[in-house]
Amino acid sequence: MFEQLGLIGCGLMGGSFALALKKAGLVKRVVGYSKSPSTTDRARQLGVIDVEAPSALLAVAGADIVLLAVPVAATESTLKAIKHLVTPQMLIMDVGSTKGDVVAAARSALRDQIGSFVPAHPITGREVSGVEYADADLYSGRQVILTPIERTLTLQLRRAEETWAALGCRVQSMSPESHDAAFAAVSHLPHLLAFAMMNSITAQPEGDAFLSLAGPGFRDFTRIAAGDPKMWRDILLANREELLTQSKLFQLALQQFEHAMKKDDAQAVEDMITLASETRAHWRMGAQRTSKHS
Amino acid sequence: MFEQLGLIGCGLMGGSFALALKKAGLVKRVVGYSKSPSTTDRARQLGVIDVEAPSALLAVAGADIVLLAVPVAATESTLKAIKHLVTPQMLIMDVGSTKGDVVAAARSALRDQIGSFVPAHPITGREVSGVEYADADLYSGRQVILTPIERTLTLQLRRAEETWAALGCRVQSMSPESHDAAFAAVSHLPHLLAFAMMNSITAQPEGDAFLSLAGPGFRDFTRIAAGDPKMWRDILLANREELLTQSKLFQLALQQFEHAMKKDDAQAVEDMITLASETRAHWRMGAQRTSKHS
Repeated sequence: MFEQLGLIGCGLMGGSFALALKKAGLVKRVVGYSKSPSTTDRARQLGVIDVEAPSALLAVAGADIVLLAVPVAATESTLKAIKHLVTPQMLIMDVGSTKGDVVAAARSALRDQIGSFVPAHPITGREVSGVEYADADLYSGRQVILTPIERTLTLQLRRAEETWAALGCRVQSMSPESHDAAFAAVSHLPHLLAFAMMNSITAQPEGDAFLSLAGPGFRDFTRIAAGDPKMWRDILLANREELLTQSKLFQLALQQFEHAMKKDDAQAVEDMITLASETRAHWRMGAQRTSKHS
Repeated sequence: MFEQLGLIGCGLMGGSFALALKKAGLVKRVVGYSKSPSTTDRARQLGVIDVEAPSALLAVAGADIVLLAVPVAATESTLKAIKHLVTPQMLIMDVGSTKGDVVAAARSALRDQIGSFVPAHPITGREVSGVEYADADLYSGRQVILTPIERTLTLQLRRAEETWAALGCRVQSMSPESHDAAFAAVSHLPHLLAFAMMNSITAQPEGDAFLSLAGPGFRDFTRIAAGDPKMWRDILLANREELLTQSKLFQLALQQFEHAMKKDDAQAVEDMITLASETRAHWRMGAQRTSKHS
């Protein structure tokens, strides 16, 4: 049970966290700050936060839990702004989709106070943004990845785990590097491919006509292409090295298909599709990893 | 109103067409044939067809409307098998996802009888197959593309248009070549990319671990990767030239992203994502094409 949440960034992710803590009875008071005063004001009107803070620093004053829900590129400046009020008793988390850059920003900004910071990535999201869409159940049933470093305080790591678990999440820890490698493959690459495919079509003279014929497969495949440009710009650049590696591996897999198609090798094409189809048909979101040898 | 539907292929697509015609009161009797006798039997038990035919030819005997709902690669042999009972009074359609190869197969198989054949592509589908999933509403609200050729009888083209319209579809005609170019871009390419991405991930030593972390974006992006391997093998090969062209254009668009990422050109990355995001956000499935100048 927390006395006071200091919420920095009252958008979809931050607002949903505040509502979820309240719904679970885990917090008495939420003090919120957003860069845009109208957002903070709206968050209070909607009951997402109880008190508006005029700065990030003042949102942290008196808080025993702090959530940063800002674009990942703003992590360092935000942590610098609140550093003077960070204490070892305080749990600080973020919700960013990349973790290597967030950890580097936290090391640089927090220095000796870094033990309070537990980097977190809840695997959820929407193609909409804004506090109006904040939802107390956004995190329920989702996975949350924590990426503690050697200087993270065990106490705060345990509190972070308990907090997300109390919101109905399954929590696991891994290194920031492992996190970024995995999400380059299963999140950042699909986004990159969806963006590139949309642009490849619209660049063609017949692009509009093509798009008017697209059906439900296209609809689902490209849903993630509607993501927020600034947020995804930051993610693609923050995780650039891992993402470029995944993009290279993907292009090799694509070229294997092209090669078999050019040779009219029906068996090779069928075998490759069968592998993809069976893998996808057996995949379940959030399923526990099972050993092939068990 | 038709007297008798000859249904060749009693799977998801064929079975749904039979149920839809019945529901709309457009047919008195459905005679069905499937390559597998157990499928034909099951279709009759489920009330999808009224009478089982022991061959494709006998499914056509006495029919005034015939639907081929077989893999596109089986079009030519199926049309050859029924050719002797085809008359100018009969409407014959298919439901294949590629049209150039279907038209070539029909020219070769039907020769002077080709006027009865109206190539059709209803834009719908499921990641499941089989007559058990047949659904009278599968086609309702969907687009249907007809690709008549110069020898198609106007009478049969009009009957085809009226039939699909009566099932709640929006119908448009275009050349087989235009159809295949468009669907290479908005359907076959997304499938190819989804297949290749699945295989790119599973080929990595950490692939299973990566997949266990994937979330809702991955789920939707890869839904189409679970498609039927033989069906998609045939589509990728049948529309190979157009698809290879689209894959090349796609890789150029992807490499533009990679180039901007390598240069750390945040503005270029953001601009490219914005283009993709706005295009996708404004796209509506089945929306009428609107001129940019109107």
